Amino acid sequence: MDPTILLDPEAAMEESMEKILELLEEKKYFMARDELLKYNNADIAEMFEEMLEEPERLERTIVVYRLLPKDVSVEVFAYLPSDDQLKIVNGITDKELSYIIDELDFDDKIDILEELPANLVDKILEKTPKDERRLINTFLNYPDNCAGSLMTPDYISLEKEWTVERAMQHIKEVGMDAETVYTCYVKDTGRKLIGIVSLSTLVVADDNRRIMDIMHTDYVCVNVYDDREDVSEDFKKYGFLAMPVVDKEHRLVGIITVDDILEVIEDENTEDMERMAGIIDLEQSDQEYLDKSVFKHAKNRLPWLLVMMVSAMITGAIINSFENLLSSVIVLVSYIPLLMGTGGNTGAQASTLIIRGLALGEVELEDALKVLWKEARISLCVGLVLSAVNFLKIIFIDKESWLIALTVCLSMIFIIVFAKAIGGMVPLLAEKLGADPALMANPIIASSVDMLSVLIYFLMASLILGI
Amino acid sequence: MDPTILLDPEAAMEESMEKILELLEEKKYFMARDELLKYNNADIAEMFEEMLEEPERLERTIVVYRLLPKDVSVEVFAYLPSDDQLKIVNGITDKELSYIIDELDFDDKIDILEELPANLVDKILEKTPKDERRLINTFLNYPDNCAGSLMTPDYISLEKEWTVERAMQHIKEVGMDAETVYTCYVKDTGRKLIGIVSLSTLVVADDNRRIMDIMHTDYVCVNVYDDREDVSEDFKKYGFLAMPVVDKEHRLVGIITVDDILEVIEDENTEDMERMAGIIDLEQSDQEYLDKSVFKHAKNRLPWLLVMMVSAMITGAIINSFENLLSSVIVLVSYIPLLMGTGGNTGAQASTLIIRGLALGEVELEDALKVLWKEARISLCVGLVLSAVNFLKIIFIDKESWLIALTVCLSMIFIIVFAKAIGGMVPLLAEKLGADPALMANPIIASSVDMLSVLIYFLMASLILGI
Repeated sequence: MDPTILLDPEAAMEESMEKILELLEEKKYFMARDELLKYNNADIAEMFEEMLEEPERLERTIVVYRLLPKDVSVEVFAYLPSDDQLKIVNGITDKELSYIIDELDFDDKIDILEELPANLVDKILEKTPKDERRLINTFLNYPDNCAGSLMTPDYISLEKEWTVERAMQHIKEVGMDAETVYTCYVKDTGRKLIGIVSLSTLVVADDNRRIMDIMHTDYVCVNVYDDREDVSEDFKKYGFLAMPVVDKEHRLVGIITVDDILEVIEDENTEDMERMAGIIDLEQSDQEYLDKSVFKHAKNRLPWLLVMMVSAMITGAIINSFENLLSSVIVLVSYIPLLMGTGGNTGAQASTLIIRGLALGEVELEDALKVLWKEARISLCVGLVLSAVNFLKIIFIDKESWLIALTVCLSMIFIIVFAKAIGGMVPLLAEKLGADPALMANPIIASSVDMLSVLIYFLMASLILGI
Repeated sequence: MDPTILLDPEAAMEESMEKILELLEEKKYFMARDELLKYNNADIAEMFEEMLEEPERLERTIVVYRLLPKDVSVEVFAYLPSDDQLKIVNGITDKELSYIIDELDFDDKIDILEELPANLVDKILEKTPKDERRLINTFLNYPDNCAGSLMTPDYISLEKEWTVERAMQHIKEVGMDAETVYTCYVKDTGRKLIGIVSLSTLVVADDNRRIMDIMHTDYVCVNVYDDREDVSEDFKKYGFLAMPVVDKEHRLVGIITVDDILEVIEDENTEDMERMAGIIDLEQSDQEYLDKSVFKHAKNRLPWLLVMMVSAMITGAIINSFENLLSSVIVLVSYIPLLMGTGGNTGAQASTLIIRGLALGEVELEDALKVLWKEARISLCVGLVLSAVNFLKIIFIDKESWLIALTVCLSMIFIIVFAKAIGGMVPLLAEKLGADPALMANPIIASSVDMLSVLIYFLMASLILGI
């Protein structure tokens, strides 16, 4: 690698990118390719992503892609997001495509086959050997959110009677990818998993020791239909680089490597954040923001907005029923945003912490009372500070009567206490009922807190102002 | 491992936990220990977490901990969260503590030393050899959020002239942890990193090949002061199991392994979510929800609530300035929650998607115009649907005049367009100014959208109703 690239890789990449785009303009394809080849395959893929962005550059970009050395073209393909993969698939010959598909790691192969149109998949599968075709079909059938969809069947099996020397010889012969070779698996005659050996153990062990004597039998494994969120929890908990996946009969069907888990964690977090903001992607597509169509965006955002609208209508109706109160003391209206806003914000703060705590396993269902007690005390602290500030502001800046100030400030304390309690409890309740706290909690909290806020406020006003 | 545990590990663990707590009651320490030892070290640590929860069980739990085999006790210690580690430190003898500290992996050792009180750290450091003491002190000085705080100096160095056979021999002699052995590093005489070799390459290569011929020189490395968020981005991008860390002079100072990155990703995501909900942890403590004191919780939540309060006061003042309008058409008040709520929700949806897109690198600064154009079209879709529903509701259910319905619905469309535009642009602006979008965007969006909503609504009402 060029030493100047090592010093400031990002600046160097940006410069190269500009140069490559110019070379494309001038149809200097070979020079563009050579500029790309200065970089790591993951970086080359990143540059292709940018080149593929503009439709008018597509054809020229494909020409450069086809000029890449074959091994590089496969790896770059694997690094690309699926929409860019499709653009390339449509631009290359069937022969080139078969080569790429053949050479891809099994899990990447499955990923791209899932995205390709059915007729193209059939054409590719026709040319694959029968055994592999059957395996591919099995893998294509695992649901998207389960351990099966993350795993690869490319793992190394050892026999328990083998010596270390024989095992090392076997590994040399199979000679696999870095990410899958570091843990080897030992199965019995019924294909049941009986132990695991790490490559580091093998390397350090004496040549003539038997696998059965050095293998770990207290391994951790996941079931092929386990939720991928649970699998990523296990990776975080145990800190493994790979985990075996077994079926119901405890037969080894594949392994999951940690690099695929990084993506799962990000996906799950994105989903949680979006759900908390009321964006519900029913198709669970992993399209990026800019690639998603306007209508799909609108469709994902509308359901929650409609739910919230109904709740706002009810809040409006509550306000309407206090029309007499409002028309006699119209200034009360100007404190509605303050009280509803404070209720909403404090409720959302509590629920975010609890939803996140649940996701990370820091908070559990049994902690409900502890959470309630904690949020109650936090509410009092927060409520006293906020209402003190408001009291002074209403008296000295707004120059309203102290009865109005008292109404607003007492309401505020009550609203905060209720909002925090609801914000703390609803996620736990959702979890208890088996619903996703991130999905269910926020609409329920936001609407109930809104209604409660105006109700508390107007009741307090009626009481204190005697109207 | 017990076969019944393999079938349903969680149920088995819960049962064992109950049994252990009973055994503790009866002071049957050895039996409790034996029950624990049926499990994996990470699971044992999880059970200790539960045992350490109740202060009245503390002493008995420590007794069981001291009965664990020495190697298990060290590993269990490493898996525990830092507050539980402190509980154990306070319960065991100095000699036991020195043993544990000695045996811990270097990065775990640094983590616990950072948590211990200074006098205890000094006592431990006194007993460590001078070289290691210097190294520990260097590591303790790296800021918490940089690559240096994640790395370990336990990596394997090879000489470039060595043969593969000699290298494998060296690895056998050093014999290290699984997570650190899989990539070996080649340095020149000035300790500068010149290449990397993976263990899988070594295993597959011929015995008499030279390291310099099989090593990769186009590796990716990070600087010791790089932000840990950037480091985790690199891990996601390249899919590596470990990355070398170099100083300004490109000398190798340590490596970072992927298992530590899983934690970084979760921490960063938690931080983003909390910031988006207006919770600002200035001390950036990684205490769990239940361990954090009430005052700390209140302190983290108050700043944003105060900011939002000021904004709500301004919104209130705007409402107040339209007092005449409101007192003549009091029903307008009841639509305030609807319009403010819709504005807030649509703005938050847009900003959440953009903030997340920025964090994942899906959206970039140059995309500002594309985002604006996309959000404008989404707003129209969403706005038309929501206002159509409202129009019908106001006419047929509320039985208000069609002028009121027109006022509300036209306002709603304008509010949604503005809210989505602000929600889309503010995070990009924050990023442009070098501020954290998750921290800055939401308060600014929420307050500006609130003010804008009532302003648009009342202006529209004055215009249409002619008051």
